[in-house]
Amino acid sequence: MSYKNLNNEELEKEYAAVKAEYDRLLSLGLNLDMSRGKPGFENADLSVDMLTNVSKDTGFKNRDGIDCRNYGGVDGIIEAKELFADVLGLKPEQIIVGGNSSLTLMYDVVSQAITHGLGAEPMYKCENRKFICLVPGYDRHFAITEHFGFELISVKIGENGPDMDKIEELVKDESVKGIWCVPKYSNPYGNSYSDEVVRRFANLKPAAKDFHLFWDNAYVVHDLYEDGDKILNIYDECVKAGNPDLPIIFASTSKITIPGDGIAAMAGSENIIKMLKSRLAFQTVGPDKINMLRHVRKFPNLESLLEQMKKHADIIRPKFETVFAAFEGELGGKDIATWTKPRGGYFISLFVMPGCAKRVHALCKEAGVVLTGAGASYPHGIDPDDSHLRIAPTYPTPENLKTAAGVLCTAVKLAALEKLTGRR
Amino acid sequence: MSYKNLNNEELEKEYAAVKAEYDRLLSLGLNLDMSRGKPGFENADLSVDMLTNVSKDTGFKNRDGIDCRNYGGVDGIIEAKELFADVLGLKPEQIIVGGNSSLTLMYDVVSQAITHGLGAEPMYKCENRKFICLVPGYDRHFAITEHFGFELISVKIGENGPDMDKIEELVKDESVKGIWCVPKYSNPYGNSYSDEVVRRFANLKPAAKDFHLFWDNAYVVHDLYEDGDKILNIYDECVKAGNPDLPIIFASTSKITIPGDGIAAMAGSENIIKMLKSRLAFQTVGPDKINMLRHVRKFPNLESLLEQMKKHADIIRPKFETVFAAFEGELGGKDIATWTKPRGGYFISLFVMPGCAKRVHALCKEAGVVLTGAGASYPHGIDPDDSHLRIAPTYPTPENLKTAAGVLCTAVKLAALEKLTGRR
Repeated sequence: MSYKNLNNEELEKEYAAVKAEYDRLLSLGLNLDMSRGKPGFENADLSVDMLTNVSKDTGFKNRDGIDCRNYGGVDGIIEAKELFADVLGLKPEQIIVGGNSSLTLMYDVVSQAITHGLGAEPMYKCENRKFICLVPGYDRHFAITEHFGFELISVKIGENGPDMDKIEELVKDESVKGIWCVPKYSNPYGNSYSDEVVRRFANLKPAAKDFHLFWDNAYVVHDLYEDGDKILNIYDECVKAGNPDLPIIFASTSKITIPGDGIAAMAGSENIIKMLKSRLAFQTVGPDKINMLRHVRKFPNLESLLEQMKKHADIIRPKFETVFAAFEGELGGKDIATWTKPRGGYFISLFVMPGCAKRVHALCKEAGVVLTGAGASYPHGIDPDDSHLRIAPTYPTPENLKTAAGVLCTAVKLAALEKLTGRR
Repeated sequence: MSYKNLNNEELEKEYAAVKAEYDRLLSLGLNLDMSRGKPGFENADLSVDMLTNVSKDTGFKNRDGIDCRNYGGVDGIIEAKELFADVLGLKPEQIIVGGNSSLTLMYDVVSQAITHGLGAEPMYKCENRKFICLVPGYDRHFAITEHFGFELISVKIGENGPDMDKIEELVKDESVKGIWCVPKYSNPYGNSYSDEVVRRFANLKPAAKDFHLFWDNAYVVHDLYEDGDKILNIYDECVKAGNPDLPIIFASTSKITIPGDGIAAMAGSENIIKMLKSRLAFQTVGPDKINMLRHVRKFPNLESLLEQMKKHADIIRPKFETVFAAFEGELGGKDIATWTKPRGGYFISLFVMPGCAKRVHALCKEAGVVLTGAGASYPHGIDPDDSHLRIAPTYPTPENLKTAAGVLCTAVKLAALEKLTGRR
């Protein structure tokens, strides 16, 4: 029953019914949170054996015989480099393993870009510096570049990735210094970049010689289904295109082991790694090698890590499917919303009627369901269409999620009907 | 037998004897390292129980009921703030607990100073920015400010702390933006600042309103003797002086628990903490709270931490005393060297005859004993007197240390005699 086909009387009737349902939900006094892409604790449970696998009994040395209980080794222990190399399809010498957060590594690189440059003069000297942000995208990415004074330029993302025509045009501007990319199961669209998109990225000819792809491969192994999305290796493609220094690649184990207690990595060409390592020497006397040792003992090889990801998928997949089912059942065919159906990652994008996203957020909040703020996935928190909502299904229990998704669907309908009946 | 009182013939005789001894040492083919202030692994052994004290059996929640296996809490868990507050004599709300390295926190603050300022405009705009470095001092401090384009101004440190007359004069220059201080058992001099020095720091009236004391209280609880040095609380003194925002205070557990696997903190006034926290939000989704939990379970209160420090002292004190005994026995009364006798911390400063430090370093190296590079404790690695050597006695075993100290003393004598006999 498409709302488009309803006459005024039918719309009023539907409004009354949906409003009654919403009022019933209000009366339940719910208190549910779908706001951030956190794993649930049942995911963390899969890794708690890791917390005790470095001990007096098991010893503190890595394969090289380094007792990890001391300073040193700014770029991480060899096994951790190998693990990330396997995950990312790179060589261990292309990897720097750091602390507990890939976001911190990204922040550091942007901060360095300002103070010391990324292959050219320090970017504080480029007063009209710009950064491309794919929308909807990851708010914390955008926030970093905004914090460092970049003008944020939005480019829309779609089923196959971003609008590459637009990007190829934008990089002709020398003040455009980089782009945030989440190439696989992009946050929060959920799609993965097609081979053509990756190749076009690799073949970019930016005017700025210090332009870089900030390639946040956050969900590189985070498939929900056996046949996960496959994306091309950006580094290999960049080498083929004669652009080896273009990408700076990031990943972490936050959503593989324990969020906040994982290890993070950055990667790139020999030039890039040499540059980043030379700066790291000022910043630290060495990372937490004990935590690296925990990780590589938990995952002695890629296969063991992929086995763990299947277990994560078994926990998370039903949550995604709960949301898909609710959307399909409640919103399907009504022509008031569309949504993505990611096959991995942590987010679903829900597009409601233009001008309705903030209202849906408010209605949910009033009914005790906290969503990510409408607009959060856009630079400066402003979605020009006021249409997008980022749905994070991983943290709530399946039961709570079902309830929350129900509230959300009711709010989507109510907001649409308020608009269609001229109430708003 | 002061070398000063020897005539040429006696000097030649002494030279021949010392040279013979040096040649004998050369023939031993030693391979010893006294180069950096690392704890030995017997120190780390005191904390290995901590590595398994957060587990499925013991649970993952802190006092507030936060399951530490997730993102969030950018400034650390409450118990960790309380522990550092007790260590530093501050309130928990004055503390931000971060990752594994206080050096990284210091680097971050200096980096922020450049990009966003520390209470005034971003410091990249101050092209002739300067930073005061106490000499001999900590090479990694100096390196950070050099990396960020500060001119480094050396001020000598002595028995009671730095030359405050000089500092009071220097801060009248608005381009002087800060000073590195290690107030207790200063690295590498080993002394602690007198009450008068701390008070004069607190009462500084810098021309730059964004001038700060970078107060690295690295050895705050690192006494070697029951009656450790006592220093005044810089924050309290700054409050009395009407300068509450002057100090930014740093500490870490690297040399309390396990180097590289500790937790670090920064502290200051409400204003300072508010500013630093607001920036932290861009940088991280949260620190490694599990490692904080390990620490606060290991040390539920200050007393338990101080008990651990006594055990550290029992390991380290004999090492310091081995070096003191070697210096006294081999160099005492010869008028060719002076040295500090710290009652805590990680370093001893050895001052050899001017123009001889590099030579001593080279002689030691040739004999298989690696010292910190001569000049390392001075900005840009240049000791204008070529006189200072930083001695790091904590890492070698006592036996190796005795051998290494013997080599060092022979090298000091040989270098002096080469000079006194006109050979160099």
